Amino acid sequence: MKSYREELFFETRTRRAYLNITPQVEAAVKKSGVREGLVLVNAMHITASVYINDDEQGLLKDYDDFLERLAPQSGTYRHNETGEDNGDAHIKRQLMGREVVVAITDGRLDFGPWEQIFYGEFDGRRRKRVLIKVIGE
Amino acid sequence: MKSYREELFFETRTRRAYLNITPQVEAAVKKSGVREGLVLVNAMHITASVYINDDEQGLLKDYDDFLERLAPQSGTYRHNETGEDNGDAHIKRQLMGREVVVAITDGRLDFGPWEQIFYGEFDGRRRKRVLIKVIGE
Amino acid sequence: MKSYREELFFETRTRRAYLNITPQVEAAVKKSGVREGLVLVNAMHITASVYINDDEQGLLKDYDDFLERLAPQSGTYRHNETGEDNGDAHIKRQLMGREVVVAITDGRLDFGPWEQIFYGEFDGRRRKRVLIKVIGE
Repeated sequence: MKSYREELFFETRTRRAYLNITPQVEAAVKKSGVREGLVLVNAMHITASVYINDDEQGLLKDYDDFLERLAPQSGTYRHNETGEDNGDAHIKRQLMGREVVVAITDGRLDFGPWEQIFYGEFDGRRRKRVLIKVIGE
Repeated sequence: MKSYREELFFETRTRRAYLNITPQVEAAVKKSGVREGLVLVNAMHITASVYINDDEQGLLKDYDDFLERLAPQSGTYRHNETGEDNGDAHIKRQLMGREVVVAITDGRLDFGPWEQIFYGEFDGRRRKRVLIKVIGE
Repeated sequence: MKSYREELFFETRTRRAYLNITPQVEAAVKKSGVREGLVLVNAMHITASVYINDDEQGLLKDYDDFLERLAPQSGTYRHNETGEDNGDAHIKRQLMGREVVVAITDGRLDFGPWEQIFYGEFDGRRRKRVLIKVIGE
């Protein structure tokens, strides 16, 4: 069994951002040399998500509006009594998920026609990390 | 390490549907010959989910009501300005998730008493796919 | 390829509870002898979650408030017409997720600075289980 590990780094200029990281994950899978296996891609921080959906600007705005409606940044959160201001971001991340697991077949991400891997940032403007872990043969 | 790949196809008559696909996944695990490992089951389309919960008709209606309340099909979505009418389905799929990863032990799905794998369709009436990928030994 | 399986048991005194199970998962990974691989941790019951976020008391209360707001325990659910009273718990569990998959690197959980694994119970006061499955080398 082979394994491979890589970290991606992000520092977004805005508090919230949605970045297509599919090319970086594809490159990591290629570097791993794994032909058949699984790749795990997860946010290493607890106010960010990795998720799979469409790379369409209107949809990204729909997600952002939806998350702000359910857990507004200006809402009241007990977590913020610790001095933090990111209580909303911990909830947004739970709704969008921490991680994706993608099949690797013939050395490629085994994807449907529109699947793209996104990094969802909900408390940016500082350096944060994503983990890529590949296992297989 | 062994690996096995299979696709399932669905074309639901209704826009939204919830289908128990546990028997198909169990059959794929058996065909794989894997005794100890993991099986990934994911929607290959971005307006559908694979999730695990109970096969109870009232609950399926509760999920459908809940998802319609949070992201109604008749709502206003920027994504729909592209000519699509499925902005709601992209949000519903995020809430229910893209994929499940299930342990394989002694050649069987290693499940609790009520766990069943469902395909959640939020924009049906066309041919769509689910990927099953098994790895292990 | 090595594999290892372990179950954790919980019986919470309250209907809802949020328990940090990171030490138990770390111990299982150590027992597995796997140095490079993946660990799947999933609720075996369909009214409970395994998720990763911060171990901060205010945040746990924020999650609980959020879930009660979206799917109140006292709400009306078709599932409850079966005689159950946990329709809300099936929805809460979907929002928080069933499982996490964590990378194992150098024999340890490959975590960012604040990641902690939680068991989220939404219908407790009875014995329930979590599955830990490790695969790798």
